[in-house]
Amino acid sequence: MKPGRSNRRRFLQSGAGLGAALAAGAGLAADDTKPASEQPAPDDPTKVQGRRASAYGERSRFETAVRTVQEHNSLTPLAAMTGIITPNALHFERHHAGVPDIDPRRHRLMIHGLVDRPLMLTMDDLKRFPAVSRIYFMECSGNGSRRTGLRTVQEAGLTSCAEWTGVNLSLLLREAGVRTGANWIVAEGSDAAKMTRSVRLAKAMNDVLVAYGQNGEALRPEQGYPVRMFVPGWEGNISVKWLRRIKVVDAPYQTREETSKYTDLMPSGKARQFTFEMDPKSLITFPSGGQKLQGPGFYEISGLAWSGRGAIRRVEVSTDRGLTWKDAILQEPVLPLAYTRFRHAWKWDGSEVVLQSRCTDEHGDTQPPVEALLKARGENSTYHFNAIQSWKITADGNVENGFA
Amino acid sequence: MKPGRSNRRRFLQSGAGLGAALAAGAGLAADDTKPASEQPAPDDPTKVQGRRASAYGERSRFETAVRTVQEHNSLTPLAAMTGIITPNALHFERHHAGVPDIDPRRHRLMIHGLVDRPLMLTMDDLKRFPAVSRIYFMECSGNGSRRTGLRTVQEAGLTSCAEWTGVNLSLLLREAGVRTGANWIVAEGSDAAKMTRSVRLAKAMNDVLVAYGQNGEALRPEQGYPVRMFVPGWEGNISVKWLRRIKVVDAPYQTREETSKYTDLMPSGKARQFTFEMDPKSLITFPSGGQKLQGPGFYEISGLAWSGRGAIRRVEVSTDRGLTWKDAILQEPVLPLAYTRFRHAWKWDGSEVVLQSRCTDEHGDTQPPVEALLKARGENSTYHFNAIQSWKITADGNVENGFA
Repeated sequence: MKPGRSNRRRFLQSGAGLGAALAAGAGLAADDTKPASEQPAPDDPTKVQGRRASAYGERSRFETAVRTVQEHNSLTPLAAMTGIITPNALHFERHHAGVPDIDPRRHRLMIHGLVDRPLMLTMDDLKRFPAVSRIYFMECSGNGSRRTGLRTVQEAGLTSCAEWTGVNLSLLLREAGVRTGANWIVAEGSDAAKMTRSVRLAKAMNDVLVAYGQNGEALRPEQGYPVRMFVPGWEGNISVKWLRRIKVVDAPYQTREETSKYTDLMPSGKARQFTFEMDPKSLITFPSGGQKLQGPGFYEISGLAWSGRGAIRRVEVSTDRGLTWKDAILQEPVLPLAYTRFRHAWKWDGSEVVLQSRCTDEHGDTQPPVEALLKARGENSTYHFNAIQSWKITADGNVENGFA
Repeated sequence: MKPGRSNRRRFLQSGAGLGAALAAGAGLAADDTKPASEQPAPDDPTKVQGRRASAYGERSRFETAVRTVQEHNSLTPLAAMTGIITPNALHFERHHAGVPDIDPRRHRLMIHGLVDRPLMLTMDDLKRFPAVSRIYFMECSGNGSRRTGLRTVQEAGLTSCAEWTGVNLSLLLREAGVRTGANWIVAEGSDAAKMTRSVRLAKAMNDVLVAYGQNGEALRPEQGYPVRMFVPGWEGNISVKWLRRIKVVDAPYQTREETSKYTDLMPSGKARQFTFEMDPKSLITFPSGGQKLQGPGFYEISGLAWSGRGAIRRVEVSTDRGLTWKDAILQEPVLPLAYTRFRHAWKWDGSEVVLQSRCTDEHGDTQPPVEALLKARGENSTYHFNAIQSWKITADGNVENGFA
């Protein structure tokens, strides 16, 4: 490390240092043993000249919501979210061999197999094609698969929503010239797992993106930088990240991730395979587990709903464990295959209650009660868990897991 | 500073350190004299276990687009943007006394004046009200006011677009009870400039937000953390940041920012005042100044359009300095008072050309040629510059300022 100015800058960049520096600038006593969020701010900000503009912004030192980091995952803090867009820094992660370090100038995407003109594309080549941008949710097929209910809504945070930008895969496939006999594609990532999944050609030609943009900037590394496949509405792992190869083939490849993983063992002893589409699902994010209501009175129940089959048409909310249901308000814009934010005005009388939400999509598909889902799927099926979730509010205002 | 582990963590967080650490992990030779973006990445990422999930993500070390930092501004790198959402770290800034350091637990919003029940709200109080989320553009009234044209599109980067979440101001005003005789509100910020602007009550009761969320997370400090007024479609400075006070009054306050500043001196010698709404405007972001086309062939012309009066209905593109115009494709969703991304397929023959775009909103308002705007506004008017912009492409592919 170099001494002097360089060290000082680094010190200022670190969390505690920033708080201390801000406090010092305002003539306040800083305490270096505490994190930035606990350093004092000026009593009267109008008496202190503020800091200058910056090249790349950071959030307030008082904001501390983060992803829950697990071994191969991180979960979006859904309770802290507003609106439908997930900021890139908080988009959930799921990887099979960590986040690779890829230089975009050296990355290539190959499109080959049953095609007339195999392609080898640089990132510059890819960005030369016409682009599209779409707001889409993404959800891991294993999200929220807890038979015993959630303690916090972040436990079901293997889902996020962003504006994705890229090239229609159909365009690239037309450029390559798909041959007769082709029925599927196989996509492969550049991670150490060489994550590989098969997709029906019909879907590939419909709405699949080869995406390089996320909420206005480049994909984040943990989301597949510099380029990923994005398969709208389908379980997240199929949207192969760090995409390096698409092979056009006659039949699915029966890869590890579509045989030993990402299949659902049914009561019959047979496994459901290629359970592509995510079922309709909704989560009340406020009030949700771990929060505490400050006494009886007015509250707005708020949450997120989505379906892998299209747009959300209806979200109902129950405040009596499913005995009666009322329609929630759907926040515009209601976009297909994207989060829909719902809101429902509610007056809490201070008694113990159980809150639930249930969404229905444009095809009339809806969420089942947990008992019905478990009965249909049996004991060994863990993916695609979209049962109605329950939050119990105790008389003292604590919000807890509400499974009966 | 503490020695040992703390220093090392700080070293790893710094740009060059991160690159070196990554390179070292991949068995590569790192060069500490170079920035992270120039450190080597593994030749074959599939042979290297990637890094683990993280609590709060960062963009790739290879991505370097940043805001242009000026004395009281920073400009969004529009040419690097995809889609319509501006990531929070790159949202433009304009402040009048820097970015204040505000502890949200101690911040208060007062609503008083011609009301029956003055309010003093904490952030918790504010978040208890029903919320709304909307995707809206924002633009500084002084954006792109260059009579001589832009050298880069980032020079007109005092504009951004985000999903904003907050409470309808109308709801808070109803809670306070607006009295007869009230016609305006005056909003005041907690920055050292005590930024103060007047807004007609009709607008305040229509669509103004008291906003605390931006693209799914808390407002960024430079956008008004913990709470700002957001006045959709109007010039940016009226969306008072670090909002601490709204007074309901009978007439506008004629503050510094609506008399000596943010007025337009017309050829008659009189000034236009309260020029609230931003006029329809569009910018071609690709190809744009400073870029270089790699030879003749297909290109997608792409850009952004918006209007402070409603939704964009049409964007036309000219590739012959305005002689002929063709309709561009408008990317869905086309939302009122938000960016609309437009795209236009184009084949460049390699000759010198001038590209222009012209948008029209739902009221039929459109962008004027620069000569017409200058003639109408005269020599001294600098705000609300929405003339058609021009990019010249030279025969060698360089994109330059295209003003005649």
